Amino acid sequence: MELDRVRAARGVIDPVFLDSPLFGCDALGRALGCAVSIKLETANPVRSFKARGTEVVVGGLRDQGQTAVVCASAGNLGWALGWSGRRHGMDVTVVASRRAPAAKLDRIRASGAVLEVVDGDFESARERAAEIARRRGIRLVEDSLDVETCEGAATIGLEVAQQAPSADAVLIALGGGAMATGVGYVLKVLAPATEVICVQPHGAPAMTRSWRERRVVTTDSADTIADGVAGRYPISAVLDDLLVVADDAVLVEEASIMAGMRLLLQHAGLVVEPSAALGVAAVLEDPDRFAGRHVVTIICGSNVDLDDYHRWVGAGPQDLGAVEAGR
Amino acid sequence: MELDRVRAARGVIDPVFLDSPLFGCDALGRALGCAVSIKLETANPVRSFKARGTEVVVGGLRDQGQTAVVCASAGNLGWALGWSGRRHGMDVTVVASRRAPAAKLDRIRASGAVLEVVDGDFESARERAAEIARRRGIRLVEDSLDVETCEGAATIGLEVAQQAPSADAVLIALGGGAMATGVGYVLKVLAPATEVICVQPHGAPAMTRSWRERRVVTTDSADTIADGVAGRYPISAVLDDLLVVADDAVLVEEASIMAGMRLLLQHAGLVVEPSAALGVAAVLEDPDRFAGRHVVTIICGSNVDLDDYHRWVGAGPQDLGAVEAGR
Repeated sequence: MELDRVRAARGVIDPVFLDSPLFGCDALGRALGCAVSIKLETANPVRSFKARGTEVVVGGLRDQGQTAVVCASAGNLGWALGWSGRRHGMDVTVVASRRAPAAKLDRIRASGAVLEVVDGDFESARERAAEIARRRGIRLVEDSLDVETCEGAATIGLEVAQQAPSADAVLIALGGGAMATGVGYVLKVLAPATEVICVQPHGAPAMTRSWRERRVVTTDSADTIADGVAGRYPISAVLDDLLVVADDAVLVEEASIMAGMRLLLQHAGLVVEPSAALGVAAVLEDPDRFAGRHVVTIICGSNVDLDDYHRWVGAGPQDLGAVEAGR
Repeated sequence: MELDRVRAARGVIDPVFLDSPLFGCDALGRALGCAVSIKLETANPVRSFKARGTEVVVGGLRDQGQTAVVCASAGNLGWALGWSGRRHGMDVTVVASRRAPAAKLDRIRASGAVLEVVDGDFESARERAAEIARRRGIRLVEDSLDVETCEGAATIGLEVAQQAPSADAVLIALGGGAMATGVGYVLKVLAPATEVICVQPHGAPAMTRSWRERRVVTTDSADTIADGVAGRYPISAVLDDLLVVADDAVLVEEASIMAGMRLLLQHAGLVVEPSAALGVAAVLEDPDRFAGRHVVTIICGSNVDLDDYHRWVGAGPQDLGAVEAGR
């Protein structure tokens, strides 16, 4: 990655996805025992950060005269690619797992993309998308591997460095690694004193284990409510980048993710998908590490089935005390 | 009001409150039968638009060497004034009704302001705040009457005109009138083809009735869940401004406000306070008027007691069909 290319990416991305809010949330900070700033990546037409990357991908394809593109997606990338494809008049095919949240599948369809649903998990979708790309001779967008997806996500880093120069730590959801490597790279260049901490669920720990062992570690299964980060096969080149830019990679429990979602609702009024609560979960599990420090957490998506959400978070704040006391 | 002063206000307001997101929400648009853009005024440290005004007020007082200020508040203004006061080292006293949402009262206290709670409604708080100002010889901030509060709110209009130049109509919650007159004024100057539509609950119709009759009409009571707009005594000077800039003022039912909150949760993932759902409620009640047009609705606040919220919106989407069918 190069900083000049990340800066250039800003010129390609629809401004509706840029300069997202970053704001302190005192109430959440009091609950967590540190100063918390929220970088909100959900207040845009696709409710996640993913369009920063798809805008760069599709902008490049358009300049090359391409007219079609395919990706595998856990949901958010597919909706974002559909959105960018529609903006630029490009045919988009998205392959997703049948297990993806219905809310995400519905949005992909509504975006105008052709959605193909496969049995199995995200890795099955990846195989099928690669097959479609080969057969049709069209570009396969590989999230995290394709530098455009990392450069797009990295534009978040430019903004964080400017909006929160005093941040002691930035907490980043870790899945395939586009956001972690992109944002991490920019912060290491522009704000080297800021700690870059990646957060992944214990139930889908492949990239974190890989980072710790400094070699690709795969897992047989992924079992987490954080569907957006539930990969099993880390990409070697992405791991190489992550080893350079991440200061730490931590794993969190499912109960902490749910507690994080609950705190974000109660103290920030935000409905988020599980992946977006990983940062708060990390603070909940290790409060001493963050006590009194200024922490930025990137709220990366809000695409969640509401019935799941209510089950995870509980119907009302009256449930909160019980759940928190039980931690 | 003057456009130059509104532009100058941008230089006084902490950037964390400026350039809030404006984005199209296709899913909400499909549900409402028109193109809907959301201007999101909740992704900031006080979760409402009110700090745009208090920043201008407190910035001016600081320049005059003042050290204390008092206001009456339904909740959001008080939190915003507390926030701006803390930023500028100014003593802030807020008077609020005991009936205000606990979430709002808690936030005012936490902001560092001195909170005085009075019996009666917002108008009682207004009287008490005026008394405190007289006794202590400090500035009474009167929302909507004080031009700074309107100029601060009007900065939203600058952004809407730039972010959504194609908007056919902008829907603005109408309470005291700061937001409606401020945003309306800017839009009439910069985007005269855009319809400025104010929305108020049937249960608190004083300003709308005043606008229709072109004279101040007060009401004996205010009965609405939209606590942020529940005034009874319109200010004559504000009405004069509103008569110049508003193209229409409409009243909506409580059931429509709740349905609007529900749609914003289901289709945009947004938890909002009732006042912020007035725009969506207006579209729900008069779909033909907006069919196929591009409507911007300003989501002005998200400070709501979650137990109230869940009661109004229902615990899950499964409730939605029943309520909507019952409309």
